[in-house]
Amino acid sequence: MSFFDTLSKTASDIEARLLTLLSANGGAERLNESVRYSALNGGKRLRAYLARAFCELCGEEGIRALDYGCAIEMIHAFSLIHDDLPAMDNDDMRRGRPSNHIAFGEATAILAGDSLALDAFAVAGLNPYCESAQNAEAMILLSQKAGRLGMCGGQQIDIDGEGKGLDINELTRLVDLKTGALFSCACALGCIAANASEAQKQAAIDFGLLTGRAFQITDDLLDISSTPEELGKSIGKDMESEKSTFVSLLGEERAYKYAGECIACAKSKLAEFGDNVSKTELSEFCDYILIRKK
Amino acid sequence: MSFFDTLSKTASDIEARLLTLLSANGGAERLNESVRYSALNGGKRLRAYLARAFCELCGEEGIRALDYGCAIEMIHAFSLIHDDLPAMDNDDMRRGRPSNHIAFGEATAILAGDSLALDAFAVAGLNPYCESAQNAEAMILLSQKAGRLGMCGGQQIDIDGEGKGLDINELTRLVDLKTGALFSCACALGCIAANASEAQKQAAIDFGLLTGRAFQITDDLLDISSTPEELGKSIGKDMESEKSTFVSLLGEERAYKYAGECIACAKSKLAEFGDNVSKTELSEFCDYILIRKK
Repeated sequence: MSFFDTLSKTASDIEARLLTLLSANGGAERLNESVRYSALNGGKRLRAYLARAFCELCGEEGIRALDYGCAIEMIHAFSLIHDDLPAMDNDDMRRGRPSNHIAFGEATAILAGDSLALDAFAVAGLNPYCESAQNAEAMILLSQKAGRLGMCGGQQIDIDGEGKGLDINELTRLVDLKTGALFSCACALGCIAANASEAQKQAAIDFGLLTGRAFQITDDLLDISSTPEELGKSIGKDMESEKSTFVSLLGEERAYKYAGECIACAKSKLAEFGDNVSKTELSEFCDYILIRKK
Repeated sequence: MSFFDTLSKTASDIEARLLTLLSANGGAERLNESVRYSALNGGKRLRAYLARAFCELCGEEGIRALDYGCAIEMIHAFSLIHDDLPAMDNDDMRRGRPSNHIAFGEATAILAGDSLALDAFAVAGLNPYCESAQNAEAMILLSQKAGRLGMCGGQQIDIDGEGKGLDINELTRLVDLKTGALFSCACALGCIAANASEAQKQAAIDFGLLTGRAFQITDDLLDISSTPEELGKSIGKDMESEKSTFVSLLGEERAYKYAGECIACAKSKLAEFGDNVSKTELSEFCDYILIRKK
């Protein structure tokens, strides 16, 4: 198996498992539809891949991290729904389809995001392949990495910075919170599922932060070089809203070079783990971030 | 101590504890302010009271349920911020002050709600007075009672029902989810903190559902009989938006009678627990719901 095989296998495993986890009805039919519309969308499932890969890197079967992967993809889906809202980034398209609030209206989109954020915890908390103490640790980490001092804090810095201009330190902090926190969380969840050491968890968190930073840079580069058809979402939004990005602050060439440095540093963090096929694949994942086209 | 003394003591304990729990900075300053604005607002803290009272009813010190009480008040605060948004109930006032989105803008209000919902889990998960297995159970329950098949589902039914008219069964389902789920959760969290039996947890959940139903009826009655100054929020909204309520479906007299029946049934659920001062106070809490003026 190569990285792309495992990524594709993970995506279909996650899709199938989320379909089961989100199948319960009750509550409101329209909310159920709206939640499934955004959570079952055939995304790349990079975060779930990271959870699986780190679990396997630590020598345990990846299935132990499957429900943690579902939980983090639910948190990711929630963040995209709320980011797309008119009061936030006001994006009408997401993955080639109308965004949730275009398809279901704003009120339902807000509630669908809320529901996914809240329901993610029971999904992680009831992971049948892990002990109660592991599941508790997973839920606490999800909370800390997604909440006020994590992803949500990053999103707020992003909003506050529009039209104002951030310096490179402020931008790095923004990206580490908005993107890095959830990447880190995914890697650490894999370690938790495998009962890894604290040193390994820390290495996983560092790996997530660095790959998250590189991922954001290539995202910014794609935002100026790609087409909406290729990306499945609107482009040129950063420049339009005068957002500071690594590309606007450093220029394309230096930004890309910095992404490469982050990736080199991320790879060095894998030294904390023994050698196996997952280590090779995670190294390929690092390279993929630099060359991805969507 | 009477119910009112314990309620007032709980409110100040919760306010002080939330001040500590929400004191960490980092992230975005504006988001920190917005979160504290809504979470530290001197509310009645009925849900935290229920967690404390059920913990004491089961013979354990109430402080064991303090952080569970904080977590559920954070979830409650999140739900109020999002309910007040223009796309939802569009309320400009909350507890006698501008609602969060009036004070901080819509984007920050959405993120403040998201942050409170997410951060509540780490607060419950790190409760220092309980074991990891109890904290895991508490987080799972919070997730289930607040999410798609709980409070959020109820809010969606509420939105879908506007201008359409619900029958009494649909309305009961709405109220059980929108209000009862969190009341039930609060009562059960107290039981979890005290390591109560499954039968006691079930009785607590029933108690929460029944008192939640009665609470919603007196809320509807206050909405037509009170003034904005007395309530600290806008009134007459239900009639304006043609929402079905117990009062609109049954008339004031029969609605109030039904609230009394719910309260009588709720009191009977307390038979599952031994006699102590908390049982007397919870009985007073039941009476309070029927006579409250705000």
